[in-house]
Order: sequence, then structure tokens, then C-alpha cells
Amino acid sequence: MFDREEELDRYLDEIKDMLRRKQYAAVRDLLLPLEPPDIAMLLEEAGEEFMPLLYRLLPKELAAEVFVELESDSQEMLINGFSNTELKEVLDELYLDDAVDIVEEMPASVVIRILDKATPEMRKSINEMLQYPEDSAGSIMNVEYLSLKKDMTVADAFKRIRRIGGELETINILYVTDPTRHLQGVLSVRDLLLADEDDRIEEIMDPNVVSVTTLDDKEDVAQAMSKYDYLAMPVVDQENRLIGIVTVDDAMDVMEEETTEDFEKMAAMLPSDKPYLKTSIYSTWKARIPWLMVLMLSATFTGLILNHYESKLAACLVLNAYIPMLSGTGGNSGTQASVAVIRALSLDEVDFSDLLQVLWKELRVSFLCGVCLASANFVKMLLVDRMLLGNDAVTITVCTVVCLTILFVVIFAKCVGCALPLLAEKVGLDPAVMASPFISTIVDATSLLIYFALASAFIPALHTM
Amino acid sequence: MFDREEELDRYLDEIKDMLRRKQYAAVRDLLLPLEPPDIAMLLEEAGEEFMPLLYRLLPKELAAEVFVELESDSQEMLINGFSNTELKEVLDELYLDDAVDIVEEMPASVVIRILDKATPEMRKSINEMLQYPEDSAGSIMNVEYLSLKKDMTVADAFKRIRRIGGELETINILYVTDPTRHLQGVLSVRDLLLADEDDRIEEIMDPNVVSVTTLDDKEDVAQAMSKYDYLAMPVVDQENRLIGIVTVDDAMDVMEEETTEDFEKMAAMLPSDKPYLKTSIYSTWKARIPWLMVLMLSATFTGLILNHYESKLAACLVLNAYIPMLSGTGGNSGTQASVAVIRALSLDEVDFSDLLQVLWKELRVSFLCGVCLASANFVKMLLVDRMLLGNDAVTITVCTVVCLTILFVVIFAKCVGCALPLLAEKVGLDPAVMASPFISTIVDATSLLIYFALASAFIPALHTM
Repeated sequence: MFDREEELDRYLDEIKDMLRRKQYAAVRDLLLPLEPPDIAMLLEEAGEEFMPLLYRLLPKELAAEVFVELESDSQEMLINGFSNTELKEVLDELYLDDAVDIVEEMPASVVIRILDKATPEMRKSINEMLQYPEDSAGSIMNVEYLSLKKDMTVADAFKRIRRIGGELETINILYVTDPTRHLQGVLSVRDLLLADEDDRIEEIMDPNVVSVTTLDDKEDVAQAMSKYDYLAMPVVDQENRLIGIVTVDDAMDVMEEETTEDFEKMAAMLPSDKPYLKTSIYSTWKARIPWLMVLMLSATFTGLILNHYESKLAACLVLNAYIPMLSGTGGNSGTQASVAVIRALSLDEVDFSDLLQVLWKELRVSFLCGVCLASANFVKMLLVDRMLLGNDAVTITVCTVVCLTILFVVIFAKCVGCALPLLAEKVGLDPAVMASPFISTIVDATSLLIYFALASAFIPALHTM
Repeated sequence: MFDREEELDRYLDEIKDMLRRKQYAAVRDLLLPLEPPDIAMLLEEAGEEFMPLLYRLLPKELAAEVFVELESDSQEMLINGFSNTELKEVLDELYLDDAVDIVEEMPASVVIRILDKATPEMRKSINEMLQYPEDSAGSIMNVEYLSLKKDMTVADAFKRIRRIGGELETINILYVTDPTRHLQGVLSVRDLLLADEDDRIEEIMDPNVVSVTTLDDKEDVAQAMSKYDYLAMPVVDQENRLIGIVTVDDAMDVMEEETTEDFEKMAAMLPSDKPYLKTSIYSTWKARIPWLMVLMLSATFTGLILNHYESKLAACLVLNAYIPMLSGTGGNSGTQASVAVIRALSLDEVDFSDLLQVLWKELRVSFLCGVCLASANFVKMLLVDRMLLGNDAVTITVCTVVCLTILFVVIFAKCVGCALPLLAEKVGLDPAVMASPFISTIVDATSLLIYFALASAFIPALHTM
């Protein structure tokens, strides 16, 4: 585990030095004790010049593990340099789900070459897996798992594990199926170890198996695995036949990806699937410009409102100075509520049926927040703006208008902020998109309307305009 | 797994009905096949009236598993109702790390009762675990693990697993230590199963063990486990002696918690540790008001700038209508960059040494975005604001001022947005706090300064004011 970038750099310098002096065995000895993700990081940092050479120094099995961890452009570069034999060697060592992940990222020419060199069974399985929708459990499952039969003894099970367990990603969790592959039970390797040799599987398995179907959303699967503390989750088809398993390491990757996506959506970006520094300028621009454009154009409404009240503003220009504060405070209040609800939604803590309870909660919280903010602002306007800065236009009436607006805007913003994500979820939209920028735009326009309505009511000079 | 709230409600109605008719055995049969987190959810929903009754229907071991999954206020309520024998029974069934979690959440009176009923060893261990800082690996590790010795045979190891494996949270990963508990190797239960009975552990273990220390940040530990696809991570003390293990289910919980915290910080809230609906109005208010107050008061600067340019604004009031659009677009641009960098930081994709690379990337992206937005806005202002809405004050000069401001503001916002989180990380502050609201405030003020500077330069009427 490289704690610091410097450590990696030091390693890398040493390795490049050795490579130049052709001390290949020494480099290999240096790499062997490292974990595959760390070796992959070294290869990435070593660059195109050294990567193929370093890669070829690794023993076959480790090479495949490292290959899986590389970025897809590095994988492509390596594949393009592989001989047919080398490509076949890598493919033979890969777990099927990893092979599918790689195929999905490669350009067509490389895919054709991969499929050509894969075994017929692998080609068939890859083709099947590619049919599952991108966000489904099917797309992340592993079809190589160990299944047992009810009437086996524990000793039979151990024999089976010894025979085929070496080829599989995990043997910690074992599933029991009938001859037509219907899921009948689950047990852990610990259950086997603690049982007697001649116990029957049926006696020690747990017949209550939580499973998901191939088309379930992979995020829900990851969440369920986290909730139930599962190391693996069985994936069944519509007829409850066992098709594959999702392992906990893949579930963790899904959680990380989905979190990144949620962050991106909340910040008004389209999701990207590459690391920040690996994304091209053009891709970054493409992910960011759509929402910026939409939100910029939708600010036209705010402009229209300001134009409409232009004469009132001109008559009482001091009001203008508080508009950024009002829209900022409204936006921040709304964002707080929406982000809290979006997160609760994605953790399954609330759903649409809780709308009234959520609204009632936010109503009370926003009243408390609004009163505090309004009072603080009243004092600040009188002490700082009027007395300290000597702005005589800041009268008690103006203070009252501004502070009442704060109160109403905070209440409005928090209620909209908590309700929109719930409504989005209900109608099948992504709640995360309902976050700050979208809500700020609504709140901006509304806060101006509230502001001018209160100003017209309270400030005599504006009555007749 | 309850897919829908309705399913849970239906279950609950049925159970309450049975309880009223005193069909306890039937209720028990209904609960037994469920997973502990689902039973916990049912108990929570059943409320204070039925919870203790339902809980007592569960067999001892399952009861303890369910207890761990309950919210802390339910745990407290149950403990207060427990007889001393019942309390002792639960404690005996708990894994130590779960017991510590519970103790941390309980009020002092309950803690004293728990410590009183725990076995002396458990009391000692709980006390030791409570010494670790809140966010450390030590605070989430489990001290009950299985260790082997180098010179054991595989058969010896199986004997050891059969003897004590039933008491442990996991036996999937086994650690090899010397007599002074120094970590020497790691192997999986699969390695054992695939080896020969008389192989020595030393021959099949992997001597390269990645470990963390008790004081490492728990978030880093979770990230490392995700990166290396580990099911368990060994935790060692300063002298490299094995102290405990962190299991993957705890790592997933940490990831979820930390994600929630990041979301909260980015939305200008203080982190809370309870689910949304379980947090009291007062706690929610307390988490939200500080940043709202700070950000509201810091908007004073924006107000001062507007006051300063009051006379220019009065002379060319059309400029005012575009201020919300400018600050919105700037804020959104900055947020995009800051959230992308914050996420890259927390995934270890970038660090402070990448500052120049990040700035150069954002400079180019922001230039592209700025040019697009400015052009689109130029066309929109001419076509919609001037021609369609007939606002003659929208001259070509005004359009130029507004659109040039957009370009500069977007570039400024994205550069500040990407740089601030990196700087924060460098000086040891939390980068997540540097997100949208903070950046919006800076960008708001700056965009006004840029706007008025350009307006003064381009619009002749404002030259001399």
C-alpha cells in the first residue's frame, strides 16, 4: 500500500534505473511482493515506454490480475502490442466478469480480436453477459460459482470444492440448487468446516435465501449486500434459477461509482466514468455545459422579474443591495434540505409515502432557521449597515421587509428542497438531479417575488407604483 | 428483503393481529425466516408497545443479531426493560465490536449497567477499544480473529478452526503470527482447503501482508479494502503486533457514513449521525444554522459592492437584471469544478502535487464553457430580451459587457473551484467544506467586481461616474 505519492515515485525511479541496466530479474523481485492494484499504479506511472516491458516481467497469473486493474487506455495499448498467444494467456486467466468489463470498454477492432482468441464457452458467456442492461445485477455478476446439492454430504462438498474451487472467485459462500438450478439454500464454508463429515447439506444449509434477479438495479443490490452484511448475493432469473453471484468487492465498486455519479449530478454535471485527470478536456466540457446552459437560460425569469419591478427598484435602490444575500440564503437553505432528503432516499430511509412527515419536519426546522437568520440580519442591518456604515436608506421598514423576506424564503426553499426529490423519485426521475442548482433557480425567482410583494406592502413610496 | 414499504406494512399488520390474539408461536414462525436487518425494521415499525414482546419471541442468538441492527433509542428502551439475566444473555452473544458500538451510544446509567453485567474480559476489552479515537481503525476493528502459527500443518489449522471458529465473526481470512503476535503472513480458508493435510502453513501463506495501524483513519482503511478487494484488513499496533481485524461489512458501513458526511458538508451542513427522520428538529436545526448564518453574513460584501456602484446601476438599470444570472452561472461553474476535485481527492486520484495540472485542465475547460455560454447568451439577449421583449436598453454594448463578464466569471469560478479543495487538503482542512456555498460566496462578490469594471470601461455614460 503506497501511503504517499513520493513512495511510488521513489519505487518508480529505482525500477526505471534497473530496466535501463537490464536487471530484469531484480525488477521482477521488486514487483512480486506488491499487490496487483499497486503494480497497476506503477505501470500506469511508468508510461507507454516501460509499461509493456514491465508487464511482461510478471508471472502469468499475477499479470492477469494486474491487467484487470489498469485503466482502459492502458489495456488497449497492451492488447495492441500482444501476440495472439499472449492475448490468449491473459484471457484464460481472467474471471468472466472482468473479461466482460474489459470488452465493454474496448473499441470494436480490439473486441473482435478478443472474441476471436477467447474459448468458445467464454465467447458465448461474454455475449450473454453483454445482453444485460448496463445498470443491472446481470451486468456485474459472476457466472462462475460453486453450487451444491441438498443430498450431498459435507465430505462430498469438500471434494467438490477441492476439485473446482481453485478456478472460482470465491468459495466463502456456497449455494444449494436442485437439478433444474432452482435456488434452495445457502451456507458458508464455515458452516461446512464446523459440521461433521457425514452431515447432509440439507441439514446445515439455511433455506431462506435472499436473492436478486438479473434485471435488478445494481445499486439496490450493493445496498442490500451492505444492509445484510453479505459477502455474495445470488442472482436468479425470472424463474428463480441461479444464474450467477455478485461478490462484495464488486458491490463496493458499485457503491463508489454510484456515489461519484450522485456527486456529479448534484453539482449539475453529467456522470463520467473515468478518473478526473484521465478525462479529456472535451469530455469534461461535454459533461458540464448542458446544465450550465439550461440553468443560465432559466435565469431569464429572474431577469424578467427584476425588469418588471425596475421602477420600484429605482425608487428604493437600497433594496437591490440585499438581493444576492436573499437568493444565496434561500439557495443554501434549499440545498441543505434537498441533499438531506436525496441522501435519505438513496439509503432507503424515506420514500414518497413519508412526504407529509418530511414536509412537517422541514417546516419546523425552516421556521427555526428563518427566525434566527432574520433576527441576526435585523441586528446586523441596523448596527452595521445603518449605524456603522451610515447608510440612512436602511430604515426600520427596509430592515423589516428584508428580514420578513428571509423568513418566508427560508421556509419556501426548505419545503421545495425536501419535496422535489421525493416527487422526482415518485415519477421515476433521478432525485439527485433535483439538487442545488435546480432548486436555487426556483428559489431565486420566488424570493424576488416575495421580496417585491413585501416591499410594495410595507414601503409607502412603492404603494402606488 | 422488503422491496416495498407496503410489504412491510402488510407483514406488520398481520403480526400485530396475531399478537393481539396471543398467537405467539405463529409470530415466531413468521419472524424466523427473515434476515436480522428486516426483523429489526419490523420491530422499529411496531413501536414501543409491541417491540419488547416481539424481541422476546426471538431465539437468543437471533435476538442478539437483531439487537445490533436496532436504532440506539430502541436499544436503550429494550435494555431499560431487560432483567439482569436478559441483559447478560444479549451481551454474551454480541461480538465485541458491536458491543462497543452500543456502549458508545448509550447514556452513562445504561453503560454502567452494561459494564456491570459483562464478563471481566469483555469489560476490559470494551474499555481498551473505547480508548481509540473515533475515526480510527482501532474504533471499528474486531479483536476476535483467528491466528495460526507458521509451523502448524493444514490439519492443525482445521482443528483450530473447528475449535474456535464458531465464536468468530469471520474465518475466511486467517493471519499467521509469531509468539509475540507479530504479523508474518496471511492465507484464505480456500488456500487451506486446496492444500494437502500435511502441508505446513508457512508453505502456503502469503508473507506479504498489507496492514493498517490502530490509529489510521477508518476511511483510508475502507478505501484500501475496496482497492485491494480484501474481505478483512489486519490492524497492527506501532510495533507491528496484530491487534485486530476490520471486516468488509464494517468497511462498507464506513464508506456509507463517510459519503453521507461528505454530502452534508458539501451542502453546508454539519455532519449528523442519525437517519434523517430520526434526527430531532433541534439537532437538524443545529446542524444547519451555523453555515447558513456565516454565508448570510458574508453576503454583506456583495451588498457593499452593490452599494458602492449604486449610482452606476441607477444610470444603467438594465445591468441589474443580469446580476442573478451572472452569479448563478458563476456559482454553478465553480461548484462543478470543486465537486469534481473533491471527489477525485477522496478517491485518491489527485493530490496537492497535481495542482498545476488540475488548474491547466480547468482553465481550458472553463474557456470552452465560457465561450459557449457567452455566445449563447449574446444571441439570447439580442433575440429575446431586445427584439422579442422589446427592451431597448439592451444594446450591443450591454450584451458585450454581460457576455464578457460570463466568460471571465466562468474561468475565475472554475479555477477557484478546483484550487480551493486542493489547498484545503494541503493545509489539513476538510476539502468537502470548500464546496458550493463557500465558493458561490467568493464568486458572487468577484463577479460583481468584474461586471462593474467591464461596464465602466465599455459604457460611455458610466465612464465619469
